[in-house]
Order: sequence, then C-alpha cells, then structure tokens
Amino acid sequence: MTSNERSSGAHDVRPDLTTARMADAIRVLAMDAVQQANSGHPGMPMGMAEIALALWSRHLKHDPAQPGWFDRDRFVLSNGHGSMLLYALLHLTGYDLPLQELRNFRQLHSKTPGHPEVGVTPGVETTTGPLGQGLANAVGMALAERQLAAEFNREGFPLVDHLTWVFVGDGCLMEGISHEVCSLAGTLRLSKLVVLYDDNGISIDGEVRHWFADDSVRRFQAYGWHVIADVDGHDVEALDAAIALARDWSANGRDGRFAPTLIQCRTVIGKGSPNRAGTAKAHGEPFGADEIRATRDAMLAADGMGEPWQIPDDVRQAWDAREQGARVRGAWDGIFDAYRARFPAEAAEFARRMRGELPADWLDIVDRMVDDTVAKAEKIATRKASQNALNHLGPALPELLGGSADLTGSNLTDFKDAGALRVSDEGFVAGRHINYGVREFGMSAVMNGIALHGGYIPYGGTFLTFSDYSRNALRMAALMKQRVVFVFTHDSIGLGEDGPTHQSVEHAATLRLIPQMDVWRPADPVESALAWASAIERADGPSSLLFTRQAVPFLTRSEGQVEAIRRGGYVLRDAGQAQAVIIATGSEVGIALEARERLLQDGIEVRIVSMPSTSVFDRQDAAWKASVLPAGVPRVAIEAGVTGGWWKYRCDAVLGIDSYGESAPAGVLFEHFGLTAAKLADTVRSVIAGRD
Amino acid sequence: MTSNERSSGAHDVRPDLTTARMADAIRVLAMDAVQQANSGHPGMPMGMAEIALALWSRHLKHDPAQPGWFDRDRFVLSNGHGSMLLYALLHLTGYDLPLQELRNFRQLHSKTPGHPEVGVTPGVETTTGPLGQGLANAVGMALAERQLAAEFNREGFPLVDHLTWVFVGDGCLMEGISHEVCSLAGTLRLSKLVVLYDDNGISIDGEVRHWFADDSVRRFQAYGWHVIADVDGHDVEALDAAIALARDWSANGRDGRFAPTLIQCRTVIGKGSPNRAGTAKAHGEPFGADEIRATRDAMLAADGMGEPWQIPDDVRQAWDAREQGARVRGAWDGIFDAYRARFPAEAAEFARRMRGELPADWLDIVDRMVDDTVAKAEKIATRKASQNALNHLGPALPELLGGSADLTGSNLTDFKDAGALRVSDEGFVAGRHINYGVREFGMSAVMNGIALHGGYIPYGGTFLTFSDYSRNALRMAALMKQRVVFVFTHDSIGLGEDGPTHQSVEHAATLRLIPQMDVWRPADPVESALAWASAIERADGPSSLLFTRQAVPFLTRSEGQVEAIRRGGYVLRDAGQAQAVIIATGSEVGIALEARERLLQDGIEVRIVSMPSTSVFDRQDAAWKASVLPAGVPRVAIEAGVTGGWWKYRCDAVLGIDSYGESAPAGVLFEHFGLTAAKLADTVRSVIAGRD
Repeated sequence: MTSNERSSGAHDVRPDLTTARMADAIRVLAMDAVQQANSGHPGMPMGMAEIALALWSRHLKHDPAQPGWFDRDRFVLSNGHGSMLLYALLHLTGYDLPLQELRNFRQLHSKTPGHPEVGVTPGVETTTGPLGQGLANAVGMALAERQLAAEFNREGFPLVDHLTWVFVGDGCLMEGISHEVCSLAGTLRLSKLVVLYDDNGISIDGEVRHWFADDSVRRFQAYGWHVIADVDGHDVEALDAAIALARDWSANGRDGRFAPTLIQCRTVIGKGSPNRAGTAKAHGEPFGADEIRATRDAMLAADGMGEPWQIPDDVRQAWDAREQGARVRGAWDGIFDAYRARFPAEAAEFARRMRGELPADWLDIVDRMVDDTVAKAEKIATRKASQNALNHLGPALPELLGGSADLTGSNLTDFKDAGALRVSDEGFVAGRHINYGVREFGMSAVMNGIALHGGYIPYGGTFLTFSDYSRNALRMAALMKQRVVFVFTHDSIGLGEDGPTHQSVEHAATLRLIPQMDVWRPADPVESALAWASAIERADGPSSLLFTRQAVPFLTRSEGQVEAIRRGGYVLRDAGQAQAVIIATGSEVGIALEARERLLQDGIEVRIVSMPSTSVFDRQDAAWKASVLPAGVPRVAIEAGVTGGWWKYRCDAVLGIDSYGESAPAGVLFEHFGLTAAKLADTVRSVIAGRD
Repeated sequence: MTSNERSSGAHDVRPDLTTARMADAIRVLAMDAVQQANSGHPGMPMGMAEIALALWSRHLKHDPAQPGWFDRDRFVLSNGHGSMLLYALLHLTGYDLPLQELRNFRQLHSKTPGHPEVGVTPGVETTTGPLGQGLANAVGMALAERQLAAEFNREGFPLVDHLTWVFVGDGCLMEGISHEVCSLAGTLRLSKLVVLYDDNGISIDGEVRHWFADDSVRRFQAYGWHVIADVDGHDVEALDAAIALARDWSANGRDGRFAPTLIQCRTVIGKGSPNRAGTAKAHGEPFGADEIRATRDAMLAADGMGEPWQIPDDVRQAWDAREQGARVRGAWDGIFDAYRARFPAEAAEFARRMRGELPADWLDIVDRMVDDTVAKAEKIATRKASQNALNHLGPALPELLGGSADLTGSNLTDFKDAGALRVSDEGFVAGRHINYGVREFGMSAVMNGIALHGGYIPYGGTFLTFSDYSRNALRMAALMKQRVVFVFTHDSIGLGEDGPTHQSVEHAATLRLIPQMDVWRPADPVESALAWASAIERADGPSSLLFTRQAVPFLTRSEGQVEAIRRGGYVLRDAGQAQAVIIATGSEVGIALEARERLLQDGIEVRIVSMPSTSVFDRQDAAWKASVLPAGVPRVAIEAGVTGGWWKYRCDAVLGIDSYGESAPAGVLFEHFGLTAAKLADTVRSVIAGRD
C-alpha cells in the first residue's frame, strides 16, 4: 500500500469546529473524573489533549464499533497513569464506554480502572502503568505486524498494514526498558512504530533537568530512529503535520531509509489550569472545585462545558469516529474478501491465527512428539529436551515465534530451520527466531506485545536467575492473561561453575507466587514435552518453563502416567504400603528415585510424586489431589531451591537450599548442599520415626 | 588536588620490558585457567589484555598489600564473566592471590569463583556477572566519592580523591540499567568515573550488529558524557594516552565542563587465538589443548610462557605493583596524618564512617526516637511513620544517604532539612536526598555501589510493586551482604484506586524468599521506627522496609513488647487460655485486633502475634519461637498478599489474596477481598471447630 492509498484511511478534517473545543472536552472530562474519584492524574491528559486530538481525529485508523478489528492501528498509552485521556478518547469517539463509566472512574468493577487494563475496557490494547512497558509492548506489536505482513500479504493485498502509535512521558524514557526496546526497534527498523513523546520537563519530583538531562533527540538518533524534534505539543496543525510526515516515512522511508519515528512534543503538564499548569502539582491529584472552576473559566472555547460532565453535541459530533471507522474497516473487509477468494488456504490460516486457535491436528502433533520422546528415552538435559520438543512444535505451528536474550546456544530456543529474524536495508525479512540481545526485560515485554497483537505465540529464553530482570513483565503477562512462554534454562545450582550470581535458588518458588503464572519444572524429556504442550494450549495465561543445564535420567512411565503429567502432579512410582510420600520436581526426581531404592533396601516403601507444576496440580479436583497426596501419609519434598513454598502441601520435611549457591562443578555442589539420595533417605527415615 | 599532583600516584612506565609480554601473560593465564576448570570465558580477558595493561600498569592507584586502603581507585569489571582477567591482574600485581588459587579457578571454596565475588577475593570491589550492574555499582562508587569529598576534604587536604574505572562489554550496554545509571551519571556530572568499553562487535549469539546497532558514542554524548571514540584497544600507547586524557578531564574538566568519560576501545574478542579470535566461539568455553598450543605458538613475545601456568620473572617484575602501591598509599597516609592533626574531629568522624560503625550514642538515638513515637501515639500511615523515624535518624546519622525513584512525596523518604543532592556547573554540590528519577533498578544497584564504596548507608524508595524492576539488585545486595535499606511504600491493595498494576500482592512473600534479605512489614509507628533501627544496625545485609499508603491504628505496648519488636515476631495481645493464635503483619494487625474483640464476645480467647519480620523471627532461638507460637494451639495467619509463604509456620488457615487486586478505594477492596475482622473471626471459629 502506498502512502496515498493509505491516506484514504485518514479522517476528514472538520474546519467548521474549532479544535480548541475538542481539546477542552478532554480536559474537562479528565478534571471531572479525577475530582469525582478523588484520585487520579489530570496533568497528563490536559497536557496531551492536542496531541491526542491530532492523532485520534486525523490519523488513527480504527473502528469504535469493532475494537477487535484486526487491521486497526494499535494505540498504546505507555504513560498509563493518564488513563482518563484514553477513556475520554474512547468515550468521545464512540466506543462502548458510556459517560456513566467515566463517572465511575477508579471504582470497583467499572470499565475505567485507575490504569488502563486490556480486557476490561473496549479499545484498550494493553495494560499500562508500570512505566516503559507500554512502549515495549508497542515494539512487540510493531514487530508482529511486520512479521505477519511478510507472512500473509500478497501483491495487491495489503491484509496486514497498520501502524502502532505510542504516547510516552519522561518516566517511560528514564526507565531502562526504554533503552532495550528502542535500541532493538531501531536495529530492526520497525518503521511502522511512531512514538509521541510528551516532553513536559516535569516528573513527580519536579523539574526533570535535575535528574534527567538527556538529549533525547540525540539518544534516539543513536538508536537509528527518525526524529521529528521540537514540535509545539499544543499546536494541532503542527502536530498534524508531524504525524503526517511520520506516516509518510513509515510507508516510504526517509530518503529511502526505514526506521521508527520519535516525535518530540514540547508540552505543558496540566495545560489550561491557571495555577497548576507546568508544575508537578498537576500530575497526580484532583485539582479541587475551585481550580476546576478557574480552569473552566479560563477556557476560551468551552461554551456548553461549564458544568461537570457536560459535553455539547457539536463537540460530540466532531469527535464521533464511528462513521469514518465503519468506512475504513469496511474497505479492509473488502480486501480480505478478495484475498479469501484468491488465496483461500492463506485466508483460512490467517483467520485461525487471528482467533488464536491451534491447528486442527494439534493433538496429533502432541502425540507424535510424546511418542517420539518416549521412544528415544534419552538421558539429556531438559533444556535439550525442550529443543527436541521445539523441533516438533516449531515446524507444525507457524505461529510459534521464538527467541533468546543472547543465549540461543545455551537456552536452546531455536529449532531446526527456524531461521533468524533479520532485517535488511530493503525492508523487513521474516524469521522464526529473534536474537533479542542482552535485554531480558525488553524481550519479555516485547513478547507480551506480540501476544497482544495477535497472530503469534511468542516464547523467549534466558537463564532462570535473570527472570529477576524481567520480573514485572512476567507479572504483566499473567495479569493480562496472555499466552506467552517464558523459557528459563540453567534452573539451579546444577549449572555449576558460573556460581551464585547465576544459580537461581529462589526463582522457581517466587515465580510460582505470581498469580495466574503457570510454572513447569519438568524432570525428563517426556515431562518437558508435555510442559510445552500445556503452555501452548493455555490460551488465557503465560507459562514459565524451567529447564536444567545438566543431563537428567529418563523416566519410564505407563501411558496413564504420561497423560497424568498434564495434571501438574502425579504418582510416578507407587508403593503397596507407602510409609511416606516424596514430592520432587525437575532434576531432583532422579534423586528421589535413588532414595526410594535405598529405602526399599531397608524395607521402607515410599511413593514418589513428580510435581512439575504446582499451580496446575492445585487446579485439579479434590479427588485427584487426594489420590496423589493421600491424607495421613507423611510427606517430604525435595527441590534444589528455597524450601519456603513447599510447606503448603503440609510436608513434614523439605530438603532444599535456603542460601546462595557456590562456584563449583554441579556434582560437587549437590553433595555440598546435601541434595543427595542418602540425605533424602535419611530425612524420610527421620520423618517416619518422628511420626511413629 | 590538581592533575599534576595526582599524577604522582601514577606508575612509572618501564620501557625495558615489552608490553607485549605483559599482555601475553594475561592471555595465557586466562586460557590455562579456563582449560583447567573446563569452564569459563577466555575471550574477554584475551581481548581486553592491553586495555587492562594500560590501566593497571600505568594509571590505577592501588596498593596490593592493602586492598582496603580507603583512597584507592575503584576498579569494576562489569563484564564479570571475564573474571580471569581480574584474577590474573590481582595475581600479577601482587595481591594475596597465589597461583594455586588460579589453578583452582571455579572450584568449591577457591578464591577464584566463576564470577568475581566481593569478600571472597582481595581486590575485588563488587560481585559482577549479572550484566550492567557492575556499571551501576561504579556509578554509586563515583557518587559516594564526590559526596564524601564534599563532606570531608579541606583546602590542601585531598583526603578523598580517587577515580572509579569500569570495564564494560556490549552486554552491559544493551541492558536497560546501563541507560538508567549512565543518564544519571551524566546529569550528576560524575567526572571521576571512567568507563572503558570493550567494543568487540561480538556477543554470545554472534555479531551484535544484528541486534545491537546503536551508535554508542552518540548515545553517551546524549547523556552529556565526554567520549573518546575509536581507540585501538590493542595499542597500549593509544590506550595510555586516552586514559591520561580521561584523567585530565576528570580533574580539570574538558573545556571547563565536568562529565564522566567513556573510552570506546575497538577490540578483537579472544585476540591472539589463531582460530577463535573475533568469533563468538571465543566467548565462553575452553579452547582445548590444540588451540591453546596454537595460540601460544602465535605469540611473538611469549618466551618463558610456553607451558601452562609459567610466568617468567621479568614479566612478574614488570607487573608487580607493590612498591609503587606502598609509595602512593604512604603518601596518602601522610595527608591523613596531617589532616588528623589539623581537623581531629573530622578525622575521627571520617575514620568511624570508613569503619562502618554507628555513632557512639546510637542506642540513645533509637531510644529517643522510640520514646517520641510512643508518646505521640499517632494513627498514621506507616510510610509517614517511616518519615518520622527518618526525622530522628537523618540528623543524627550523617552517613544516611536517602533517595527515591521519583516518588519522594509518596515514599516520604526525605527528612527535614535533608537537602536535595544537586550538581552545578561549578562542580558537585552535596545533599542528603537523591532524586534518582524513574529508575528503580538503577537506583538499587547504585545504592549497592554506594554501600560498597563505604562512608554511607544508602536507602531509597519506590512503590513495593516496582521492587520487581529492581529485583536482581536486591538479590545482589543480599548476596554481597551490603547494608542497603530498600524502602517500599504502598505495600498492598491498601493503596486503592491505582489498581492491580500497582498493588503488590505477591511481593512481600517473594522478597522474603531472597536469601539474606530481611523484610520488615511494620504494623504501626513503633514497629516502623524499630524496623528502621534494625535495618541500620544490620551491618552484614540489606533490609526491605514495607510501608502502607493508608493510615493504621496505633498499638499500645508494654516496654517489653516494644523491645520484643526487634525479635521479628512477638505476642502483641495475649490470652489466658488462647484457643488459637492469629499471626498478622502490617496493616492486618489492626484487623486481627478487631477480630479478637469479636471472638471475645463469644467467649473465645485468641493470642495476637505481630510478625513484622519473618526472617528475624526465624533467627531467634527455639525458646523464643516456642514462646510466641506455642505447640498445639491452632494458628491462623492474615496478610493482604499471597498466602503461600505462611504455611511454613504450620498454620491451619491463611487469609490473604491469591489473585490480583482491583481499582477501587482501599476500604472497598479490603471488604471485597474478605480481609475483614468478621471474616477472620469466622476463620478462627472454623479452625477451632475443625480441631475439636
């Protein structure tokens, strides 16, 4: 699609209505809602009103009646505390967000929570608030758009052709993640990403020059971005021109060079408020009735907006984007119909991917993978088992989009013929595995953006210890219920010589405490394969897959036991008269089996429960749980990590590591920390004796 | 001190020995140690050998015999995987690190662990490996140096006058934290910080241009840094000149402008290896005997280094820095003696601060703080109670150096007359409270650097949820046993309307799982004051202090109970015949007290245990623990967060929140999530009934 064609999606400019009245409508709604809630952030919506107006009323491609329309432009409010800006825009342009919801701003179960939440409010693309992550999500969306376009667009059929727009403030640009993802976006020349920077010189503590003196224009140029500097953020025509230029560059390049664009908008926080504009005081609290009145009085064009919640009809009509939206979306429907006629298989695949459905033969794919894994019966590291699983899944699921934070050969996240995602000067070149660079947090939040965009199931790897770096993005994936697979290898002291900085003793336990996060720590290749299958099947939440660096024994199982892996915890080895149950995960299941042999020599029978996923086990019905962990039989858990999480299963003893690791070969460390079959057998004996 | 005076600390250049032989000594030691360990990273030490040589043999101010000498230059190996470079330097320059330790590289309890660890190896200033954080520590060291100089230096007495040197690689510069701290260092014009960038174009996945195309020179210029670009990283004379220039700028400014300096060194990873140099294959694995032999053979000046571990005497003598070090350190001792004669009080205070001892009247300070807090008996938010504590502690402890990640007015981390730390064009201006900007991770790692430097006890605040952003720095503080106080306010759903992105449901529990981290979640102003006292007294580890946004009841206590707070868990309200124990923390202690009243009305007596710090309680002797949590009495825990951590106390029920929060006023949320006295009383009744 050329720039000209694309501009058919642009909105008519309505010279008969002053833009000032439209901007003022944003301002009064933001002030009124924050006042009513007695909580919130009026300064940003008031400062970005003209920017929002220029973008939303003149350029944004969207259909308020169909917020889920696939080829809409994505809009991300990375400075999410300014949520009332977005709610005002959605309300005024015609989304299903009535005034009553705005009046309920920040109240329980309203559609207008304190920060924008995807899935709660129609038109909200991602949950923002934790600064910098919205920007990272947007990079993921823009990446997914390019990748999907490369996959599905055909000559004359620009099925996938939308922009991703982001609002950011100083806070987002101070956060380290902004460096990670903007550096990556520049390297990958994501030209359909446009960032509008609310450069107001104020953050919560006051004038940013005392703690943030960056030359942001120069910084983004260093990333290879196009920058439109020094735009008056309150001059709608200037903003309009800058946005139009960015759109042109997004489609045609700038002097032939493709890159994302930053528009630096010089603004005044709280613009319009006589006494708070330009100060940190405008940022995060209600203005109070007097200042709201003074602000209204100072507006030149606010006729008919004199009282709270009043929006006159002329302003509403000027904002209403439904007719325009229906037209643009209808045009795309036409393209898709023609595409379907010409490329029926591609169209069907595209539709499946957009629905987020797995291929029809999914269960066959899993069966083949499991059968192959069982047949091979390999004693290998589970990270290698993970790669073996990917060699089945990658070719069968074109939506799998992998990557690693510069540890591809260690995480083993690539699969055969995946192809590295690369860009050339001529444009975007697709690939199935992304070298994210040493950017764990950026990678994770970009993956969230890819999942939110749709069309892909992203996964990406790093060492488990460095899940710390990306932790809030994992939380956001869980909060947003996104299907993202976080691959964490080198999952314990078993990594050996790299030492305590790299040995994750507490991470399995702490990841399990993130609500809605599934954590899998498989014990062998079969559990690894089914962990992958479960993660991919889980459409409503993320999974963290924890894999060993070191080889682990292959475990033989009945067909029923293989199936039982999907329940998160199951009986791996039973006993006629179990005197104790040993619960183990990952690399410690092998130790548990050895301990069982030792105990048997003393005539002590124990049951071994493998528990690759506690959260999945916890979701099983009471009967299953009781069948795995029978009442009245003592329980001992073993895991090469902190013990704190295991007591919820009413264990009598837990064998683990409540200190940091050491630098030494893995075998030496397991001995040193007492994670041995002998020690475990002794522990079981003590527990049994204590119960007697 | 002028540049000239300072250069007296520089080393003599020894033209009689070829620098090539000195550099080759680094290379062979790195190769041999990695080969012997069959694990490690030879590429970086070999690629940075000349850089290390230029710095360590010609500029670094240090005394190998006294690694703890206060005014030494600080050297940070931020790309810590190249640990063998540092071990080789320490060994060759004369630190107490004999060859046997190098031969024991990466073995259990050696002084040469896989990554450098402070406290394990003499001369190692900080533990590195998690990329980017060494650089951040260095920013903290350079900041502490300037602040301490402003505090103690007097005309003619440059007591505090050292540089901080950092080696970084592409990985460090890709990490987001590098943005946060270099932006801050530029803003604060930390001119005594010099970063040497190992720009070798290679990271683990291969050629970085595919995922890291930054113009790093331009990027650092955008931060306001001085940059010396394009230095041949294998030309010792060119490096020497660049380092000399950076030293000059550090002392005199560049055209009068003070700023940190980046030296971009173009290098070849694995330099010297015929078949691996310049490739990712050189990065992280042993070369093997054949390639080591080939590398030795290719060295022009390696006479006498032909066999593993051989270092000839001429090379050893050239590297030996002990005589030079004794001279430089002796000169400083002279300055300090003269300073002490002239300024005895300042010298005594300086010595105390360097020893990390608290003031002699510390316990009186605490007593006054506690007495004042008890007398006021305020019903306030614990974040406000924390500020009240700081108003006692700040003036009394000049070593307290506070800050906030752009939430000063919310975290309440400043105290009366603290003074914001500010820089002017004329130079560094001291202050007691740092506006860190929106940089949680950077702030935390900078604080670690401040603590490692010595002279200050750093603390800094953000919202508890955003402890996620800084999590690995918290872990590093704990691993390094540094006295750093992490202040986390807005510690639960009690923050209300900001909603689930800001409501930390899992964070208290997950922080508690970081080994060696003390977590305090105080219930009222008195517990808040003693949490602060405990954190400051804890010389060998960090503390996280969790405070509420909302007001909590003041709790009356006996003197013994006040003292018992220091034990982490204690009986707040006892019962003659307790039928159950309720364990509560923070804002839920008030709910527990209400539940107790309700139960009393039914004739049910319960004991209330306040447990502000589980780790501190867990360190008490068995008698104390049993006296607080008597055997045989049912236990119910309540905390506004995930329940998983409480089962280790063998609770019969835990009341908490195992899902995400919501956006609504705090009171509404406590009702919504069932964290009420009524629900708690019902839970206790059920537990008692179940036990009957």
